[in-house]
Amino acid sequence: MAATSATSSNSNSALQVEVPDQFTGYAAFSAENWSDLKLHTYDPKPFGPYDIDVKVNYCGVCGSDLHSVRSGWAPSIYPLVAGHEITGRAIRIGSKVSSIKPGDLVGVGAQAWSCGACEACAGEENATKVGGIKAAEAGGWEGEVGFGGEGGLSGGNEQYCKKVVETYNWRYKDGSLAHGGYANYCRIHENFVYPLPENVPEEIIAPMLCGGVTMYSPLKRANVGPGSKVGIVGIGGLGHFGIMFAKAMGAEVTAISHSTRKRDDALKLGAGRFISTSSSDNWEVPHQRSLDLIISTNYSTDMPLTKYLSLLKIGGTLIYCGIPEGTLPSFSWESFATSNLSIKGSNVGSKKEVLQMLKMIAATGGEKCWSWIELVPMAKVGEVLERLERGDVRYRFVLKADF
Amino acid sequence: MAATSATSSNSNSALQVEVPDQFTGYAAFSAENWSDLKLHTYDPKPFGPYDIDVKVNYCGVCGSDLHSVRSGWAPSIYPLVAGHEITGRAIRIGSKVSSIKPGDLVGVGAQAWSCGACEACAGEENATKVGGIKAAEAGGWEGEVGFGGEGGLSGGNEQYCKKVVETYNWRYKDGSLAHGGYANYCRIHENFVYPLPENVPEEIIAPMLCGGVTMYSPLKRANVGPGSKVGIVGIGGLGHFGIMFAKAMGAEVTAISHSTRKRDDALKLGAGRFISTSSSDNWEVPHQRSLDLIISTNYSTDMPLTKYLSLLKIGGTLIYCGIPEGTLPSFSWESFATSNLSIKGSNVGSKKEVLQMLKMIAATGGEKCWSWIELVPMAKVGEVLERLERGDVRYRFVLKADF
Repeated sequence: MAATSATSSNSNSALQVEVPDQFTGYAAFSAENWSDLKLHTYDPKPFGPYDIDVKVNYCGVCGSDLHSVRSGWAPSIYPLVAGHEITGRAIRIGSKVSSIKPGDLVGVGAQAWSCGACEACAGEENATKVGGIKAAEAGGWEGEVGFGGEGGLSGGNEQYCKKVVETYNWRYKDGSLAHGGYANYCRIHENFVYPLPENVPEEIIAPMLCGGVTMYSPLKRANVGPGSKVGIVGIGGLGHFGIMFAKAMGAEVTAISHSTRKRDDALKLGAGRFISTSSSDNWEVPHQRSLDLIISTNYSTDMPLTKYLSLLKIGGTLIYCGIPEGTLPSFSWESFATSNLSIKGSNVGSKKEVLQMLKMIAATGGEKCWSWIELVPMAKVGEVLERLERGDVRYRFVLKADF
Repeated sequence: MAATSATSSNSNSALQVEVPDQFTGYAAFSAENWSDLKLHTYDPKPFGPYDIDVKVNYCGVCGSDLHSVRSGWAPSIYPLVAGHEITGRAIRIGSKVSSIKPGDLVGVGAQAWSCGACEACAGEENATKVGGIKAAEAGGWEGEVGFGGEGGLSGGNEQYCKKVVETYNWRYKDGSLAHGGYANYCRIHENFVYPLPENVPEEIIAPMLCGGVTMYSPLKRANVGPGSKVGIVGIGGLGHFGIMFAKAMGAEVTAISHSTRKRDDALKLGAGRFISTSSSDNWEVPHQRSLDLIISTNYSTDMPLTKYLSLLKIGGTLIYCGIPEGTLPSFSWESFATSNLSIKGSNVGSKKEVLQMLKMIAATGGEKCWSWIELVPMAKVGEVLERLERGDVRYRFVLKADF
């Protein structure tokens, strides 16, 4: 098989490594046999001038991967190579790439492409302007982040672009299929390749590239800071980040979980208070109107939303970060209007937010925000997905590439 | 029957007028015969030191009255004297009342009492403190309003007090029943008696005391101002205030209505754009991501919420001001999370907000915010409620007391 990149003539070519025409990854072949992943060789999308090939070192295992291999949200495209919490080295660089050099340590998250031109991606007008306050100003990008390029992403909301292509199980407009990081290589537009700090272990960073920023973005946009009282519902792959990040931002954190099994972990992660929802039928009553913000990672379609809402102070917000396989639990007008509450949706985070988050964890003391992981050889991905389905992980699996 | 007030010895007694021991109003006697209102004489709550008796001049007819006489939200207490958009003169003043003098022109809205001591009523801590920003600072009270007292209501959220007593169909803690303004008199704590400006006709003010502030409060708390793009769903008793007030605050207003019947009215009220939801099956598509804020007055339980949400820009908010007789329409995670949207509940407004709103309409040019009303003798209240049920009003009925 010809090694294409060695013959490319762009300015970075001298530093580049040979990349095979086809990539190989662990694929699910059907919803029925969702945990029976087998090696599969496939064509990546054609290599474009803004593309980067990444040699995968690590890939986190996200709840989204489990939903996707099972066709839980919608029918998936099989064979399916999942994985969107990828770290590795940039080994081949398109001729127009400006933000990444060959050999750079990089990450890839849940998004592979956005249009780069709409208000969400590039616009000044993307953010709401009620009272002249733009969402981006309230929470987003601080300008200098120290990790490089952001061409076409000045809007800071590219995760909400209507033309988004996700990292796997999605097609580009030319019909090419996007493939994930349970693989030897990953090819992706530079806009969605994040430069990584060298002083944090790759395997610690990997799960943050989707799971971490899914918590970071709503906390940041809500202006969480000293004095904020934040509840995190569900102590799992997402929730453990929520507790650590809210604490790092200065909030008083309440962890809310079904049983008391994870109580000690929650306190270690930074929670100052722990509520068990199985402690009594009216577990919520002693805690009503005590929180400013709740981030819920619960995705049960019969979650008792009214009880959770009652925990919020007047004017508070519950942000829904778990993605149900169905509609949201129904709720009454009274359950939110009698405290002037908001229910908000949030979906991963922008590149700006990923870079801000990485800056936070690369800083001295950022170890308090490091992912709690279990490292597993990539060949065991099927077993890992089965354990994830049972909730048997504290709190993120990371696959080590074994190619 | 003894006239009690003439014998009272408080400092204001010289100015006070005789008030009968019992009041008389138009009452519904059952949910089945909800529009067959008949005169009914009843005991008001015992007269306390903070109470004020108001001689009713006008009473607006609110959608809440219709829900209540029909037991639409919950079984009502019959005989039911409804009405919570009351204007008149203060004619008897409790010994400790400080904010109102006998003879003052006053108003009463949807709330009759709150505890005055909780965070919602009196606290500094009532408002959420995410990032140190308090809701009250973001939207509420501006300090000086020029209309008087606010004892026990410094929190500015007394409408969200958990011990609220509404103006009718509600019991005080002593068991007394609260009665509304379809009556000759109304007795109420001074905290919920609003001093009215003398330069705006009473009948124009009356419908604002519930309907108006129900729109004013969420617009104000959302910091609507120049540049804001605000959608108002439903051009009716609430929506017509929404259009006028948003426009007065400087917003570009889009009116959203089922048919085009009210298009001309919407434009007169101040809308710059009109959307008819019956224009096509995909009426929303040309208008997606065009609004910062939507205030919905629709209370249908099968409202296509996802279509309305698609009109919002990234980070936008839909505020739910219609109260459904059931749970809210179900919606999917995608319909709000893929644009970072919020769905918020709001319930009437605080006294501070009522006074701010009155200041706005009492100002030069405030005529653009005057209620559009149809004035009817109070004896015709049954007929009026039937017309309200059919939506046959543009846009608020006001009853003129005929006692």
